[in-house]
Parts: sequence; structure tokens; C-alpha cells
Amino acid sequence: MKLYVWKIAPNPRRVCIYLIEKGIEVPTEEVGVPGKPILDPAFLERAPHRRVPVLELDDGTLISEAMAICRYFETQHPEPPLMGADALEMALVEMWERMSEFEGLLAVAESFRNAKRSFAGRALPGIPGELAQIPELIERGKQRAGVYFDKLEARLGEARHLAGERFTVADITAWCTVDFAKFIEIETVEGRPNLARWRDEVAGRESIRATA
Amino acid sequence: MKLYVWKIAPNPRRVCIYLIEKGIEVPTEEVGVPGKPILDPAFLERAPHRRVPVLELDDGTLISEAMAICRYFETQHPEPPLMGADALEMALVEMWERMSEFEGLLAVAESFRNAKRSFAGRALPGIPGELAQIPELIERGKQRAGVYFDKLEARLGEARHLAGERFTVADITAWCTVDFAKFIEIETVEGRPNLARWRDEVAGRESIRATA
Repeated sequence: MKLYVWKIAPNPRRVCIYLIEKGIEVPTEEVGVPGKPILDPAFLERAPHRRVPVLELDDGTLISEAMAICRYFETQHPEPPLMGADALEMALVEMWERMSEFEGLLAVAESFRNAKRSFAGRALPGIPGELAQIPELIERGKQRAGVYFDKLEARLGEARHLAGERFTVADITAWCTVDFAKFIEIETVEGRPNLARWRDEVAGRESIRATA
Repeated sequence: MKLYVWKIAPNPRRVCIYLIEKGIEVPTEEVGVPGKPILDPAFLERAPHRRVPVLELDDGTLISEAMAICRYFETQHPEPPLMGADALEMALVEMWERMSEFEGLLAVAESFRNAKRSFAGRALPGIPGELAQIPELIERGKQRAGVYFDKLEARLGEARHLAGERFTVADITAWCTVDFAKFIEIETVEGRPNLARWRDEVAGRESIRATA
């Protein structure tokens, strides 16, 4: 079994945080090209979805998508539960995790990848060939991310973590989103005291410090 | 318990298909405004995420996100398994379902909502206030959707359904994406024989015919 990552990117980081929280050790291979914001061409040839993270099983099966990889481990190692322990908690984790990915992480990534010259022609990950940047998406990504951060602020005024009392994969995705937002010009915790409280608490976790 | 839907939209449809496949009956309320492509303002005031589907539990808890609603039922009614029956199948379902949503459904929706005059100022769902359409996204959405359909074609050359032998929520999301694509000018099954074989087989299911 091997986990392919690009350690500076938020999606592989979600899985790395998850594995530390679970206490699971998996052999890991870095496939980012040192000093360049691209993935190793040899890896791209072998990984049809052209993205990281990818978990390769011993029989050669490739599992893409951060949450699919986490699901694989969660089913075999349910303790401590990071994807919910009963029907309602599992639903709330899935809801906040998906909203964090769709409305938060994608929005920040949209602003980032359309702004940076080093991503010219590669405005979205996973697309073979050319995909032009669209300058309007720099601001639109920030607008969407702001709506998402307001949603986190409201939710974290009523619960300690996103899905309730417990730290879960929903908090992992939200954390990686808030942290990734430092690369675009946008306020995250400023003027959002509940989000600031949560960020400070999560920042102290061993899994977060180990992947900073 | 009540499920709020807008029956012409692909996301509520994913849950409606799921419930028929499981044989679960849930009271349902239509919150689309007849003849207009908008949600009932009274519903929007009560549903902070401003999107459908939403499942309201008897204690007032609101669950958003189609797959979070399915997870709630799947955990309580595991048979027949539509989200995988063991660690590997659960991971493959999650992977193909998420790829279908991120790379397929979002791409088709991006092309659709940026093209239609009736969605002017509402280029993305769930955003309060104005969000302008971006004309470049009409073609970019089609380009991304084409990459996704090619991916389906390759996968369905090696497996009967997306996650393997069994029909799962991954097929539901992929079906709703392929069917939604009739509203944008793009080839789906033309030149993709494996996708055509899968589409014809899935089209015959009772759940698909009942939600057409």
C-alpha cells in the first residue's frame, strides 16, 4: 500500500491529517516536483485522474479523492470516529464536509488558480491539455469563500466543531480551506469570533502542527 | 420527517431515485415556484443553505446535501447497499460519486447556469445576493464535462457500473449528470459505446422511470 501526496497542496493534506488523527501509518511518496507547482510527469502517466492524493493498494487498485481514501480506512478502523458514529452524526459530518469542499475549498482554489501566473493554462486540476485562466474568477472565488466563512461563523456559534462536539473530517476540510485562504487576499477570522475560537483550538492539535 | 425537493433539478432527483431504490417512503414537499426557475422565498427563509434537497427531521434538524441525506438513510437501512458493503466498495463508491459530482454535475451545471437568461445574476446556487454570469464558463463547463464523460467511457469498459458490479449512488449521480446534459449542447453517449450501454441499462430501472 502506498499513498501518493503533494505535501503543499490542501487535498493530500486532508488525508495526512486524518491518518495522524487515527494513528495509522501508511508509506507515503511525494510526487510534487521540487520548486515547481506541478506533479511528476511519471506519476501523471500512471494515475488516470491526474490528481493527488491517490492510495495504491497492494493489488494495484487506485483510490482517488481524499474522502474516499479516508472512508477506506474509517470502515476498517472505526475508532476514534472521524466520519460519525451514528446515522445523524454521519449525515452531519457528510453535510459539513461536502459544503466545506464545494463552497469553501473549491472557492478558495478557484481564486488562487486563476490568479497565479504559475498556473496559467492549468486553471483546474485534473484536466489534460490547456484550460485557460478566467480573471473574473479571482474575485468570484473570494466572494463565494466569504459566504462560506460566514456560514462557518454562524455554525460555530452553536457547536464546538462543525458536526457537533467531536472533531471530524468536516473540521479537517474546513481547516485546510481556512489555512489555504492565506494565499488569496481575503479575511478569514477577522470579524468572525466563533471561527477565530475554532481556528485557535484546531491549530493546537498534533495532526495540524505535524502537517503545517 | 419531511424532504424538500424541486423535482426538475438534478440534486433533489438524486435523493428521490435513492429512496425508490431503497423502498423508503418519505413525505415530500415541492418548493420550486411553478413556471419559474426559483425556490419559494418562504422556504429560503427557513433553509439557511438556500439549496435543495433538504431533509427536516422531527426535532427540526435540517440535513442538506444529497449524499448526506442518503447517508442518513443508508446507515439505518443498509440493504440493499447503495453506498458500498465493505471498505473497498465503500471507497470506490465514494470516489466515483464525488468525481461525478465535482467533475461532471458541477461542470454541466456551470455551463447551464451561465448560459440561461433565466439565471442571470444567479450563476451559482446557494449564494445570497447577486452573482453575475461569466460567459466563458459556458464553453469551459462543456470542456470539463467532456473530460468527465471520457472518464466514464473508460471506466464502463472495465466494469458494469461505476463502482463495480452493483448499481450504487455513484451511478445515480452519473445518471443525473448525463441526463441534465441534454440542456446544454454537448455529446454524451455519441462515440462512447460503453457509456451508451450503461445509459440504456440504467434507463430501464424503475427508480429512473419514476423520476423522469
